[in-house]
Amino acid sequence: MRLANDEIRRRIAGARVGYLATVNADQRPHLVPITFALCGTAIVTVTDAKPKSSSILQRHRNVASQPRTCVLVDHYDDDWTKLWWARADGLAKLLTDAEAEYAIGITALVDKYPQYAAVPPYGLMIWIDAISWSGWSYS
Amino acid sequence: MRLANDEIRRRIAGARVGYLATVNADQRPHLVPITFALCGTAIVTVTDAKPKSSSILQRHRNVASQPRTCVLVDHYDDDWTKLWWARADGLAKLLTDAEAEYAIGITALVDKYPQYAAVPPYGLMIWIDAISWSGWSYS
Repeated sequence: MRLANDEIRRRIAGARVGYLATVNADQRPHLVPITFALCGTAIVTVTDAKPKSSSILQRHRNVASQPRTCVLVDHYDDDWTKLWWARADGLAKLLTDAEAEYAIGITALVDKYPQYAAVPPYGLMIWIDAISWSGWSYS
Repeated sequence: MRLANDEIRRRIAGARVGYLATVNADQRPHLVPITFALCGTAIVTVTDAKPKSSSILQRHRNVASQPRTCVLVDHYDDDWTKLWWARADGLAKLLTDAEAEYAIGITALVDKYPQYAAVPPYGLMIWIDAISWSGWSYS
């Protein structure tokens, strides 16, 4: 069954991991798991200290040229009557710590993830203003 | 650290759920969780009896017009040193049961998911021939 928007936001807010889909310049989809936080109706995610090959990532290049983005969260269970997913489709922008929203996003991330307490993330932020919400639950 | 292709395929084969990213006609990304099986170097997924609003889904319309697709699997753990993900980027095609590969895909899905034993999936199949593999593990 379809989930209501409030319920979709509640499930997105509670999920520990999400999946960020963007589109490459040649129209291929690109997909990575992210840690993220919900700030009002925006989803924020920041490059953190987890080892990566570069600080400017494909996801950043993609949203800079094509801001339409989606973030999915889900629950899988081998009992398929317990399956659900929730998705936000929106417009992404890149923020640095020069922008006021950056600090709001960092606070939300640190509040959500105790892992960030020792070293808050400090990289480029992807801020996604949600335009639409979708969600489905088996039961 | 980057994972080797064999290890990426091993992790994809073992994952119970994956995330399928496609691109809409207007260049927005689209993202859904899927049950799937790895058949050699192809990923197959079939619409099954889980309740949906329609049998022809957005994912089908998308791959029919833009076959470039990716499938991600991952492992999340609040101990971030245990994180990993694996991804296949490839070209998707739609198959019906008129095609020989369809039966191969169904067999792989039924072998993987006991949930399909009672009622094998019978809908439209998305068959994704992988072109490249990527994978990352924290440690």
